[in-house]
Amino acid sequence: MSETLNAGRMLSDGIPYGDLDAMRAALDRGEDWFDLWSARADAYERLGEGALAEGHRVSGGRWLWHASLSVHYAQFMWFHDPARREAGQRRKVDLYRRAAPHLRPAAERVDVPFEGVTIPGYLRLPEAHGDGPFPCAVLIGGLESTKEESLRFENLCLARGMATFAFDGPGQGELFFDAKLGPGFERYSSAVVDHLVARPEIDASRLGVLGRSLGGNYAPRAAAADDRFRVAVAWGACFDMSDFDTMPEHTRRGFLYASGIESVDEGRAHLQRSLDLSGLAAGLRTPLYVLHGRHDVIFSMAQVDRFREAFAHVPLVVDVEEDGDHCCHNMGQVVRPRMADWLADHLVAD
Amino acid sequence: MSETLNAGRMLSDGIPYGDLDAMRAALDRGEDWFDLWSARADAYERLGEGALAEGHRVSGGRWLWHASLSVHYAQFMWFHDPARREAGQRRKVDLYRRAAPHLRPAAERVDVPFEGVTIPGYLRLPEAHGDGPFPCAVLIGGLESTKEESLRFENLCLARGMATFAFDGPGQGELFFDAKLGPGFERYSSAVVDHLVARPEIDASRLGVLGRSLGGNYAPRAAAADDRFRVAVAWGACFDMSDFDTMPEHTRRGFLYASGIESVDEGRAHLQRSLDLSGLAAGLRTPLYVLHGRHDVIFSMAQVDRFREAFAHVPLVVDVEEDGDHCCHNMGQVVRPRMADWLADHLVAD
Repeated sequence: MSETLNAGRMLSDGIPYGDLDAMRAALDRGEDWFDLWSARADAYERLGEGALAEGHRVSGGRWLWHASLSVHYAQFMWFHDPARREAGQRRKVDLYRRAAPHLRPAAERVDVPFEGVTIPGYLRLPEAHGDGPFPCAVLIGGLESTKEESLRFENLCLARGMATFAFDGPGQGELFFDAKLGPGFERYSSAVVDHLVARPEIDASRLGVLGRSLGGNYAPRAAAADDRFRVAVAWGACFDMSDFDTMPEHTRRGFLYASGIESVDEGRAHLQRSLDLSGLAAGLRTPLYVLHGRHDVIFSMAQVDRFREAFAHVPLVVDVEEDGDHCCHNMGQVVRPRMADWLADHLVAD
Repeated sequence: MSETLNAGRMLSDGIPYGDLDAMRAALDRGEDWFDLWSARADAYERLGEGALAEGHRVSGGRWLWHASLSVHYAQFMWFHDPARREAGQRRKVDLYRRAAPHLRPAAERVDVPFEGVTIPGYLRLPEAHGDGPFPCAVLIGGLESTKEESLRFENLCLARGMATFAFDGPGQGELFFDAKLGPGFERYSSAVVDHLVARPEIDASRLGVLGRSLGGNYAPRAAAADDRFRVAVAWGACFDMSDFDTMPEHTRRGFLYASGIESVDEGRAHLQRSLDLSGLAAGLRTPLYVLHGRHDVIFSMAQVDRFREAFAHVPLVVDVEEDGDHCCHNMGQVVRPRMADWLADHLVAD
């Protein structure tokens, strides 16, 4: 498990240090990863429900969110046991849904109907910044990160006057059950935009999109295909799947799982077909920010080069952190505020 | 250094995981603790000033706060080298002071004149909760924790509708230079109250006090001596100094340093005389919450027993966490919201 355990990521997104520490000790004793994190989720769920029963909404929301994050990591990369994996995924969704109205600001659950499925998302408004309509940052997860994991980054956007809309696309989170990773992610992000531009709280002329890890492919894809996005951020350079064969085993397996494909050869071809940005890149007309860590073991520096070449026609900022790992999770306190500032510079009026 | 390095505390109060991790590796290589953390402070200071120059106030405030925390840990327990220690203390103060106006909500620097010195503090108002006047939680640090270290806990109070006032008392932070640890801390906290009740933003009838670690002695002391406090929290049970001889060496040394006394025997007597709550306990008329971790290596469980006996005459909540270490820093995500809720239950009107 250690290969896929990115402690910086877990802590940056909200796992408490004490839990991580206890977990490492337990794993050293040979205990079961899934059970351990599920037990943490149980404990936080009890705390959260207890707090809500006492009228302590801030704590209740926070502990249910901790419960959701804990069970997220229970099922994380748990591909060899799909029944538990899927139960964990559904439980994470349920816990976050119960936390949502108690978060500050609250997260409104939104289900966007699209081609017979619903795209699940959460909208949060920067209430401290007046009455709106607000600019909005649309946030996209990656292969194993979902809308429930973005609360901390949402808070950075909200503090800068932007609303946030985090959603699961095909192959991600709860939408995985209805739609697998494949071509056309941009149709889903455009359906999200259709919803957002119709909302009175949102300023339709000030939408941005940010995607993390594999979402570093989806965000520029979304903006290239839909000129209602004014700006895009790739939090991790994922231009295509040419690195597939050198990725860590668990990551490769995750890509196949999210695609619903067993065969490696079939999967590799499917992924390259679904995720190559070459065909869309020329369509981008917005500024693009690309963040990448030089020590990323999933996406190589060659991906950064492809971004530079294919997006030379737009205002492009490429931020390669020499000490950064995958998505620079080991230095979130430096790179995350920077991305939020860049979004705000383009989306928030003076 | 490892004996005094409480990773849970550092991370709960805002040290980024990546910094702690890099620090451990550097220490294993024999590098200098003070220099390492000072270099981190340099890096954050540059980031912070750069962000402010670009108009990015949220990031600027945050990075200057990171700089302040980093240099706090540079000088932490650095008693063998008073010149660097004091330079670090002053630099921490300066960095936080520059961060303060950019924090959200802002921290207002306040200097309360008292008997020829000034008591330095920071006031923050829960702006999202209306126009006030607001209830206020007065926050007291410990032997090696100061007003600059309480931002995260302040945020918990602010989210629940309470203003916060964190200050350094005698022997603490920047007041150490003018006043050493000794009898009568409660006179300083009452001077703070004199200031707060005169402020239009503060509801003088709704003041609480919370102290952490050694502050777990100061908070009930403050409330026992001044009936303008409606409620008190001891975040760590420190009833007296009877544990002095079994405390970790660094902690004992810190107590002597803060007292300005070299001799152990003289120091022990001075500390016991200055910090015994026996004489004041009967004066307390407010509800008291005591949090303690069973694995605390500084204050023993006997301290908890003394609290139970001496404060049996007031509404007393004693929360002993079986898995908790000193101040339960290893489980901050559980105990900190709980203390904030308890304060809010007593101070925030429905």
